Amino acid sequence: MSNILTQAAGSRRGFLKVTGLAGLATLAATGTAQADEQMETTANPALAAEIAKLPRVKQVLVDPPFVPEHQQKAEGGPRVVEITLPIIEKKMQIDDDGTEIWALTFNGSVPGPMMVVHEGDYVEIKLQNLATNLMEHNIDFHAATGALGGGALTKVQPGEEVVLRWKATKPGVFVYHCAPGDIMIPYHVTHGMNGAIMVLPRDGLKDAAGKPYAYDRAYFIGEQDFYIPRDKDGSFVKYENAGDDMADALEVMRTLTPTHEVFNGKVGALTGEGAMKAKVGETVLFIHAQATRDTRPHLIGGHGDLVWEAGSFNDKPDTNLETWLIRGGSAGAMAYTFRQPGIYAYVNHNLIEAVMLGATAHVVVEGEWDDDLMTQVQKPAPIQAT
Amino acid sequence: MSNILTQAAGSRRGFLKVTGLAGLATLAATGTAQADEQMETTANPALAAEIAKLPRVKQVLVDPPFVPEHQQKAEGGPRVVEITLPIIEKKMQIDDDGTEIWALTFNGSVPGPMMVVHEGDYVEIKLQNLATNLMEHNIDFHAATGALGGGALTKVQPGEEVVLRWKATKPGVFVYHCAPGDIMIPYHVTHGMNGAIMVLPRDGLKDAAGKPYAYDRAYFIGEQDFYIPRDKDGSFVKYENAGDDMADALEVMRTLTPTHEVFNGKVGALTGEGAMKAKVGETVLFIHAQATRDTRPHLIGGHGDLVWEAGSFNDKPDTNLETWLIRGGSAGAMAYTFRQPGIYAYVNHNLIEAVMLGATAHVVVEGEWDDDLMTQVQKPAPIQAT
Amino acid sequence: MSNILTQAAGSRRGFLKVTGLAGLATLAATGTAQADEQMETTANPALAAEIAKLPRVKQVLVDPPFVPEHQQKAEGGPRVVEITLPIIEKKMQIDDDGTEIWALTFNGSVPGPMMVVHEGDYVEIKLQNLATNLMEHNIDFHAATGALGGGALTKVQPGEEVVLRWKATKPGVFVYHCAPGDIMIPYHVTHGMNGAIMVLPRDGLKDAAGKPYAYDRAYFIGEQDFYIPRDKDGSFVKYENAGDDMADALEVMRTLTPTHEVFNGKVGALTGEGAMKAKVGETVLFIHAQATRDTRPHLIGGHGDLVWEAGSFNDKPDTNLETWLIRGGSAGAMAYTFRQPGIYAYVNHNLIEAVMLGATAHVVVEGEWDDDLMTQVQKPAPIQAT
Repeated sequence: MSNILTQAAGSRRGFLKVTGLAGLATLAATGTAQADEQMETTANPALAAEIAKLPRVKQVLVDPPFVPEHQQKAEGGPRVVEITLPIIEKKMQIDDDGTEIWALTFNGSVPGPMMVVHEGDYVEIKLQNLATNLMEHNIDFHAATGALGGGALTKVQPGEEVVLRWKATKPGVFVYHCAPGDIMIPYHVTHGMNGAIMVLPRDGLKDAAGKPYAYDRAYFIGEQDFYIPRDKDGSFVKYENAGDDMADALEVMRTLTPTHEVFNGKVGALTGEGAMKAKVGETVLFIHAQATRDTRPHLIGGHGDLVWEAGSFNDKPDTNLETWLIRGGSAGAMAYTFRQPGIYAYVNHNLIEAVMLGATAHVVVEGEWDDDLMTQVQKPAPIQAT
Repeated sequence: MSNILTQAAGSRRGFLKVTGLAGLATLAATGTAQADEQMETTANPALAAEIAKLPRVKQVLVDPPFVPEHQQKAEGGPRVVEITLPIIEKKMQIDDDGTEIWALTFNGSVPGPMMVVHEGDYVEIKLQNLATNLMEHNIDFHAATGALGGGALTKVQPGEEVVLRWKATKPGVFVYHCAPGDIMIPYHVTHGMNGAIMVLPRDGLKDAAGKPYAYDRAYFIGEQDFYIPRDKDGSFVKYENAGDDMADALEVMRTLTPTHEVFNGKVGALTGEGAMKAKVGETVLFIHAQATRDTRPHLIGGHGDLVWEAGSFNDKPDTNLETWLIRGGSAGAMAYTFRQPGIYAYVNHNLIEAVMLGATAHVVVEGEWDDDLMTQVQKPAPIQAT
Repeated sequence: MSNILTQAAGSRRGFLKVTGLAGLATLAATGTAQADEQMETTANPALAAEIAKLPRVKQVLVDPPFVPEHQQKAEGGPRVVEITLPIIEKKMQIDDDGTEIWALTFNGSVPGPMMVVHEGDYVEIKLQNLATNLMEHNIDFHAATGALGGGALTKVQPGEEVVLRWKATKPGVFVYHCAPGDIMIPYHVTHGMNGAIMVLPRDGLKDAAGKPYAYDRAYFIGEQDFYIPRDKDGSFVKYENAGDDMADALEVMRTLTPTHEVFNGKVGALTGEGAMKAKVGETVLFIHAQATRDTRPHLIGGHGDLVWEAGSFNDKPDTNLETWLIRGGSAGAMAYTFRQPGIYAYVNHNLIEAVMLGATAHVVVEGEWDDDLMTQVQKPAPIQAT
C-alpha cells in the first residue's frame, strides 16, 4: 500500500489531490468531498469600494512562541490587515533523537504563526503554495464565516497563490488549519499545518469583573500531536519525500495514540534556549492551541489568574484555575501575573504526554522571591523522632 | 471464550442476565450488581389522584436527527407526556464497507429518539422489550431522580413491558441509555442503546444576556463509538446473533479505542441524502449527545453563537465558540444563526475521528452569499514575484 | 532493560534519582531537569516573626474518601495549619483478582489524604520520606505559588524530612502530587502519589445566585489510572520491590491506555463496606481529583446541583449537570442534595472505564421514597397488544 502511494508521489504537483484512495478499505468514506469542492464568490463592487476606503496595514508574522506586534486596544476604526502566508513543506526534526517528519507548514513553522487583529477588522490573506511543494493546500479559519472557514475558496496547487478576505466578527482566539478534503484533513493537520489567530475586542480584554485588563507579554503555544510510523525494530521510519509516509501514518493515526505530543514542533523547543521569559509582576497572556486532541495546560507553580478556556473573549473568564482544558480543534487563552522568580514548567498535565511524549515548556522568570507566599522552613534533614 | 457465550446465547430469553462471567478474569468486578437490583415503588393514591387530573399528551417519536414537534414555551401547566418506547435488537450496517453490528436500539434507531418535554412535566414511559429480542434491558434517564435514573425500576425481559413515571425537574438536555448491570452497561451503550431528552424551561430558552431566545429548527446528533472486532486478517467480524460478539467486543472496548465513531449510527448517515438543512437567517439548535466518550463538535465555517456545553439551560450559555466539549455521558446544545449559504461540515474536531472513524455530518444551507463576511479577492493563480 | 533497572534498585537509597536513563532511547528528553533543581529560600526574619504570632493548628489527616474535620466558614483570622505527611512505598492490591502494584503513597493511601484550609491560611507541611523507602520524593501543590508548587523545595531522600510553608491564596480544590523530575513525574503519579487540598473561602461556599451554601458531608474521590504490565500470557506481572516495574510500566504508560482506572486505589474500594453514605435531604460535597487523565463523573440517579467543574470557588458554579469534566491534573467539586433513597452509583461515565477498568463507587442513601419524582406505574408484565 505504501509503495503505491510512494509511486504516486513521483508525479508531484497535486498528486495527493485525489483522496479516494480506493485501496484503503479501512478508511471511512465520510463524504466530505461533497462539502469541500472549490467555490468562487462573485464580486460586489459597491462593497469593494467601501472596503477600499479603509486603512490597510501589513502584518509582519513572527515565529511562535512570539506574536506579532499589536495594540491591545484598537485605535480608530476597522482596518484591512494584509497577511502573506507561504506554505512550506519541509523535513523537520521533532526530538533530540533525530526523529523526522516531512512537515506541512504555514510559514515554515509548527505551529503556523499567530495572527492578531481586532473585532471588525478585515483579514486579507494571500496564501502561497510554494512551487517546491508537492501537495494541494488551503486554509480554514475557525474565526471566519462561510465556505468552510475559507477552505473552499483557497485551494491552491504548488506554485499558486490565492487571496481571501474575511471579516473578524467574533472576538477570541481561534485555530486555523489546512483542510484540503477527506483524509488529507487529518493528515495535513497532524503533520503540523495549523496555527491560531487572536481577534481582540476593540477595547481590549476585560477581567472577570468586567474591568479593562492588559498584559505585558503574550506567547503562543501550539501543541502538536505527531504519529510517526515505526519499523519492525520499533525505530521511527524516515521518508524521502513529503507524503511518502501516508499509508503508514494513517495506520498510526487510527490508533488515536500519538508518538509525540510537542509544543512548537519539537520536544524541548520551548525549554533551555527556547524558554519563554517573564519578570515578577508582569502579566503574561498564554494562547494555547491544539488542532485535534484535547489538552490540559498547567503552569507548575503558577495558576491561570484569568482563563478564557474555550477562547471567547466576550465570555467572562474563569479565575484561579490550576489546569484548563483546550478542546481539540480550538485555542484558549490564559493570563497570569507572575509572583515568584524561577523556572516554571508549562505542561500538558497528562503527565505522560508532558514528560514521555514531549508536551513541556519552560518560563524563566526573574525577580525577587516572596517568602510570604512560600518558604522552606526546614531544609531536608534526617527525620526526627517526635 | 466466544464459544461459551455463543452457546449460552442459544438459550435465548434472558441469557445475558447473568453477568458474572467468571471466565473473564480480566473483567473488573465493580460490584454494581449491588446497586442495580430491581426495585419496586409503593403506590401513593393521593398523589396518583392529583397527577390523574393533569392533561395527558402522547409524544410521537421521530427518527434522529429530527426531534418531535414541540412548543418552545410551554402552554398552560404541567402535563403528563406519554411515550411508548420499544426496544429492538437488530443487525445494522455501520459504514459503506458493509461492516455490521447487532445493534441494541431504542425505537430501532441509533441513537434512540430525542424526547422533548418542559420543566415540571411528568414523563410516563412505557418501555417494551420486544419478544423477538434476546436480552434483558432497561432505561436510565440522566434527567430523572432516583432508582438509578429509573434503571432499577425498568428491567424488562424479552416480551415484557413496564411503565415508569418521573418528573422533569432540571431544565437542559440529557442522555438516556440502557444500563442493565455490570459489563452489560458498556456493552449495551456501545452497541447503540442511548439517546437524549430535552427538558425545556417553561418559558423557553434565554440567551447570554437573559433575553428570550427562539430557534427555527432543531436537530439531534447522537455520536456513537463502536468497537467492532477484527479477524486475523484485519477484517471486521460478522456475527449470527445479538450478543455473539460479547467476548470479542469486550476485548476491543478495553483498548478504549473505537473502530468507528459515527453520527446517527452509520458513517455518512448525515451527509448526502441525509444531510441536515437550513437557510441563511435561520437559527438552528443542534443537540449533541455522546453516552461514553468525550467529543468536541465544531461547525466548519460557522460557530456556536450560544453553547450550553454541559447541557444545563438554567446556566448562561457560552458565546461565539469555535469548538465545544461534550463530556462522555452527556448531551449539550448549540445554537447558530446561519449567515452564509453552502455545505457546512459538522464534525467531531478530533479530525482523525471525524474523517477516518466517521464523525462527520453535513448541513446544506440555502440563501445569499454575503461578500462582506468573506470573499475571494483573487482566484488561484501563479505566484507573482513581489 | 528491566534487568538493568532492577539491578540499580539494589543500591537502594536514591537509586532512582538519576533519571537520565540513557538506555531508554524512546523516552523524550524534555529538559525538565533544568526546572526541577533543588532550590533553597533565604530566611526573612521580620516576616517569620509576624507569622510566628499567628495561631497554629495541627490538621489530623484521615483516609479518603473522608475529609478532615473542618469549619466551612473560617473563625477569626488566618492560621498556620501544620500537617505532617509521611511518604510510604507499599505493595497494594488494586483489584479482587490479586493484581498488585508497588504503590508510592502519601500517608499510605491512594489517593493521598484530603487537606482542608481557608483562603489566607498558611500551610506548613512536614514531608517525611520514610527510611524504609527506596526513592527520592517531593510534593508539588497546585494550590501553591512558586518553586514548582513547592516541588523544588521539598526533595527528600529516604530517611529525610523537610518543612515547607506556603500561603493559600486561591480558593478552590487543587491536586497535589509527587514530581521528582523527568520520567519520575508520571511514574510516581501513576503509582498513586497524588491527593488534593481544599482551600475554602473564609466565608464558605456560595451558590450560583451568590448566596451562602453549606454542605452536611464531604467526600473525597481520588481517581487513579494504573498501567500494570502483563506477561506473555496476558497476566499482570508482580514485582519484588518498588521501582522494579519501571521499564515495563513506562511501556504501558506510553500507550496512554490504563489497565485500571479506580477510585480510592482499588476496584470496588468505595462499594459494599466502603460505600459512601448519605440521607435524603442531606447536601453532600463530592471532591473529585484525577492527577493525569481527564474524567467525567456522574451520579447515576442524581445530578450535580452545583458544580465547580474546574475547581475554583470564586467562580459561579454550574447547575443541574448530568456529568462534569475533571481536567487531567485537577480537582473539581460537586454538591448534591439527595432526594431519593437507594444505592447510587457514582461513576466515571466513560462506561468502559467505569465497569471494565473499575471507576465505580456507591453512595447508600437512607430516607423516604418520593413517588412524585419517580414511580413505577406498572410492573414488568407481558406486552399488551394496543
